[in-house]
Amino acid sequence: MNDQTPSPSRRSGGRVARRAQRAAPLAADKRAIGPGLSGGTFKPLSDADIARIHEAALTALETIGLADAPETGVALLTGAGAILGDDGRLRFPRALVEDMLAVANKGFSLASRDGLHDLELGGTRVHYGTAGAAVHLVDVAGREYRDSTVQDLHDAARIADRLDNIHFLQRPMVCRDIADNYEMDLNTVYACCAGTTKHVGVSFTDPDYVAGALEMLHMIAGSEEAWRARPFLSNSNCFVVPPMKFATEACRVMEECIKGGMPVLLLSAGMAGATAPQPLAGAILQAVAECLAGIVYVNAMAPGHPAVFGTWPFGLDLRTGAMSVGSGEQALLSAGCAQMHQFYGIPGGAAGGASDAKLPDMQAGWEQMCSNVMTGLSGLNMVYEAAGMHASLLGFCHESLILGDDLIGQALRCVRGIEVSDETLALDVMRETCLGADGTGGVGHYLGADQTLSRMESDYVYPAFGCRMSPKEWVEKEKPDLIAQATARKEAILAEPSPAAFNPELDQALRARFNIHLSV
Amino acid sequence: MNDQTPSPSRRSGGRVARRAQRAAPLAADKRAIGPGLSGGTFKPLSDADIARIHEAALTALETIGLADAPETGVALLTGAGAILGDDGRLRFPRALVEDMLAVANKGFSLASRDGLHDLELGGTRVHYGTAGAAVHLVDVAGREYRDSTVQDLHDAARIADRLDNIHFLQRPMVCRDIADNYEMDLNTVYACCAGTTKHVGVSFTDPDYVAGALEMLHMIAGSEEAWRARPFLSNSNCFVVPPMKFATEACRVMEECIKGGMPVLLLSAGMAGATAPQPLAGAILQAVAECLAGIVYVNAMAPGHPAVFGTWPFGLDLRTGAMSVGSGEQALLSAGCAQMHQFYGIPGGAAGGASDAKLPDMQAGWEQMCSNVMTGLSGLNMVYEAAGMHASLLGFCHESLILGDDLIGQALRCVRGIEVSDETLALDVMRETCLGADGTGGVGHYLGADQTLSRMESDYVYPAFGCRMSPKEWVEKEKPDLIAQATARKEAILAEPSPAAFNPELDQALRARFNIHLSV
Repeated sequence: MNDQTPSPSRRSGGRVARRAQRAAPLAADKRAIGPGLSGGTFKPLSDADIARIHEAALTALETIGLADAPETGVALLTGAGAILGDDGRLRFPRALVEDMLAVANKGFSLASRDGLHDLELGGTRVHYGTAGAAVHLVDVAGREYRDSTVQDLHDAARIADRLDNIHFLQRPMVCRDIADNYEMDLNTVYACCAGTTKHVGVSFTDPDYVAGALEMLHMIAGSEEAWRARPFLSNSNCFVVPPMKFATEACRVMEECIKGGMPVLLLSAGMAGATAPQPLAGAILQAVAECLAGIVYVNAMAPGHPAVFGTWPFGLDLRTGAMSVGSGEQALLSAGCAQMHQFYGIPGGAAGGASDAKLPDMQAGWEQMCSNVMTGLSGLNMVYEAAGMHASLLGFCHESLILGDDLIGQALRCVRGIEVSDETLALDVMRETCLGADGTGGVGHYLGADQTLSRMESDYVYPAFGCRMSPKEWVEKEKPDLIAQATARKEAILAEPSPAAFNPELDQALRARFNIHLSV
Repeated sequence: MNDQTPSPSRRSGGRVARRAQRAAPLAADKRAIGPGLSGGTFKPLSDADIARIHEAALTALETIGLADAPETGVALLTGAGAILGDDGRLRFPRALVEDMLAVANKGFSLASRDGLHDLELGGTRVHYGTAGAAVHLVDVAGREYRDSTVQDLHDAARIADRLDNIHFLQRPMVCRDIADNYEMDLNTVYACCAGTTKHVGVSFTDPDYVAGALEMLHMIAGSEEAWRARPFLSNSNCFVVPPMKFATEACRVMEECIKGGMPVLLLSAGMAGATAPQPLAGAILQAVAECLAGIVYVNAMAPGHPAVFGTWPFGLDLRTGAMSVGSGEQALLSAGCAQMHQFYGIPGGAAGGASDAKLPDMQAGWEQMCSNVMTGLSGLNMVYEAAGMHASLLGFCHESLILGDDLIGQALRCVRGIEVSDETLALDVMRETCLGADGTGGVGHYLGADQTLSRMESDYVYPAFGCRMSPKEWVEKEKPDLIAQATARKEAILAEPSPAAFNPELDQALRARFNIHLSV
């Protein structure tokens, strides 16, 4: 159904050639999966549903509007055509929203520092990465939650750097060992960027911290010009406090980021039943209305500035009032949002892949797969929180991140879908297998068919940790434990030097200019 | 987008009433999920893809045909219009296939013994259940695989009987403690039916065994007439040996079952890359062609006899030649098949929810969810192997079955989808929450909204075992282990008398007539 499958391999003569082919590593463009595969086969919303949500969002912006914009935002938005009411709320005429949708950036890439992992957003192209603000590191050996540190964050970045199916690193944990918020924000940038050359996301806590961060980023990039040409770090702005209020300080952070040439994530994180309507449709609607307000804000300030449409409605367990992110409702919320992004044609993101489970157990597996695969199938451009996230966003687990790479690889294979063509229908192969080339009888199986071997790697995904042994082999191999294997992989990655580490001169300069908490 | 959500609850006045409402159990029709929810939001195949597969299947049947039909089948099928070639293969003219598709049963129910769990097949209505022929019972405490017994099978039936989201019990394990095949088949019927009143599926190994089984079923039903009025057991017929050969003996078993009024599952279980083409499209095509041959067979013999279109293509790990059922490829295969069933309008089934993992670990969770949720979203009528199945179908696990109930509950919530209506968009609730009833300021949250509480149970699914505690509560509760909780639940279920047990007179009569291996 789509054209993203690798080109058919050429026929190779003979068994030796096939064996050689089988042993050789595949070029990236021949692998079964990769970043940016197109989804869109799962559509929880009908076209009529989508139009209705859009219409209701326009009505909400026009009649309810948003409170609490900072003074700068009020000036900006009223200047663009928003109306400030006596109740202090900014209301958005439909024409204003439509005009800003017209100028909004419809397809941009989020740069990687190495140029090899750029994320081309738009359409139904799917990317998975970490995100969040967990306050705990999950110690699987001790079955314990402890405060997360800057070293834990750096380790997560280093591990993510090595995992093919983790396409970006938004900081998943806060550095609780750094008391000063300015130093925490700057060290977050350092710890992430020193660990991976993939695109990094952070979230600054104060508008005054952005200047220092930009100085650091200019140093890492080599110059302000180099940074602005390829901004490899974006800022996640919780620019609203749902329902329908601007987050005053976060809006000012956003303004500073935009001035500094930094892509932004317009993040609306309502909780269905608490800070957003309880029904799924209402929670999506409110998130869409809020993000549309964000699109107006950004484009009133800097037309076409890259901004991710970040509808992140979350689920809630209404029995207890606790946040719940591993549920089927969550998967539907995020997948439905993806369709709204596609309706607007603006790159978007939402949460998928987080678990409520405390440890990487069976529950974690089913919860992480549910929303990862459904958001992928829906064509969500940025699946945030996709790996490693536990305890309803409170804990991050390195082992789970590693296993998440396998899990997301499987989800990506599902996103790729089923290719139907003469070659893949293989009617000729079936005929020859059953009847033989001359019609006098075929071999009766496909094991030796050229097609079977030539497409073996390009069609199928093979897990690194997922166990496919027979029970007999499993016993002979002493019943390998999934978590223990992930721990071994973690230790192996962290024992090697970081390929993303800054060169010594740059590192020295950064350490001279900023109080870097990570030891050399 | 669909109309299957429960009717809106009436407004109840005051907090006390709301609390009472919250504590009371919900009527079945007010629960968020149940059997037979309609899927269809996930479509891995386009309409053009579907038409192309259908066309190729007709070509395959016309030009390749199937070998190895039993003499009875040859007579039946040539009588209907099939052509027996010099090569011994039966070829099916298009008109014959189309004629038989026209008379095939398009919507039937699979009866339960109690009348409370009938499965209404057809459309995109989804049901989950067990299936398979595992030869091992997975002992989670000892991390061991041991031979499965008739007691294990009976226990599985008793557990499945108590799980809301397990809608039918196809026998998941073979009784390896019964050496005689006839006794094994009869004891399988007994062990399943004595454990659950839900619809049961078995698979007879010899045409000569069917008469005895029917005698047992007539006794259980009360009479042959009562059995034929509501046949609560169906037979799974592996009627083909892919590629494109009839399974001679299994066809004769099928004929006996049809004569006895037993619904049949037309099961084609090719393995992509071994006994079916390696590309997903080709594997689906071959399964469709084979099942169409089965539809011709059944309807030539008994027009309109209830037969499930059982395209069960399986994945293979081509690196090792081992079967692989937990993969993304598997989920796509089964979901694509569901679309073909819908194209023909014939109730269908495929495999989903099985895992390659040896134990109910994180891998098991992600694999089981992947294919369970994708087959559900695709609207597969019968998701076989949906719970408890491990080691690529070689092992069955009672604890995993219990946890699978939670997992499938979540998948069903996803199948139900997102309802978009004025009520669920909740624009009025949003307005009142933000602005207040009189426009002078709202409460700013939805926690107390009538809608939030009234729809709390009818909109959301709450897991029985999935843990949503905070890390703090989790520590206070001594870090409950998922598997240990499932074991405790298993023991509690098995400690109670079986609600499905036969009454003492019937049980005595059955034991007098047959050699029943289960102790009283």
